[in-house]
Amino acid sequence: MRVDNKHSALITFGENLRNFRKEIGLSQEELALQADLDRAYVGGLERGERNPTIMSLLRIAKPLEVTVSELLEGVK
Amino acid sequence: MRVDNKHSALITFGENLRNFRKEIGLSQEELALQADLDRAYVGGLERGERNPTIMSLLRIAKPLEVTVSELLEGVK
Repeated sequence: MRVDNKHSALITFGENLRNFRKEIGLSQEELALQADLDRAYVGGLERGERNPTIMSLLRIAKPLEVTVSELLEGVK
Repeated sequence: MRVDNKHSALITFGENLRNFRKEIGLSQEELALQADLDRAYVGGLERGERNPTIMSLLRIAKPLEVTVSELLEGVK
C-alpha cells in the first residue's frame, strides 16, 4: 500500500531499516534478493513510503539479523 | 489480508495483543472502538488470523498504552 502523506512512524521505520542494512553491509539490491522482495519496494520502505505488514517485516528482518521488534523501535 | 495457514509469528503477536488488552482491562469491543477498528477484526488479530500493517499496529498500540515494538516482542 503506497502512503501519500508520509507518516512519521513509517519514516522512523525506514530510517531503522536503512541503519540496520548499512550496519550489516548489504546494498538495497542484496537485501531485496535475500528477503525475496522487489528492490524498488525496499527503496520505498526506506523512504517511509510503504506500510508493510508483519509478514513483510519478518522477511526483511531475517537477512538483517534483527527482530521485527527491533525494526520498529521508536515507531510511534 | 486473511491468513489461511496460521503463521506462528501472527499467533505470537495475537497472544501479545490479548495479554496487553487484558492487562489494561479492555474488552475486544472497547479496544476496537478506541482503535477505530472492527470488533471482528480485533478478534481475528488475537487468533493470529490477520496480518496487520504498521499503521494498523499503531492504531491498536495507542489505546493499549504500549509501543508497536512491544506488541511485536518475540515475533519471529
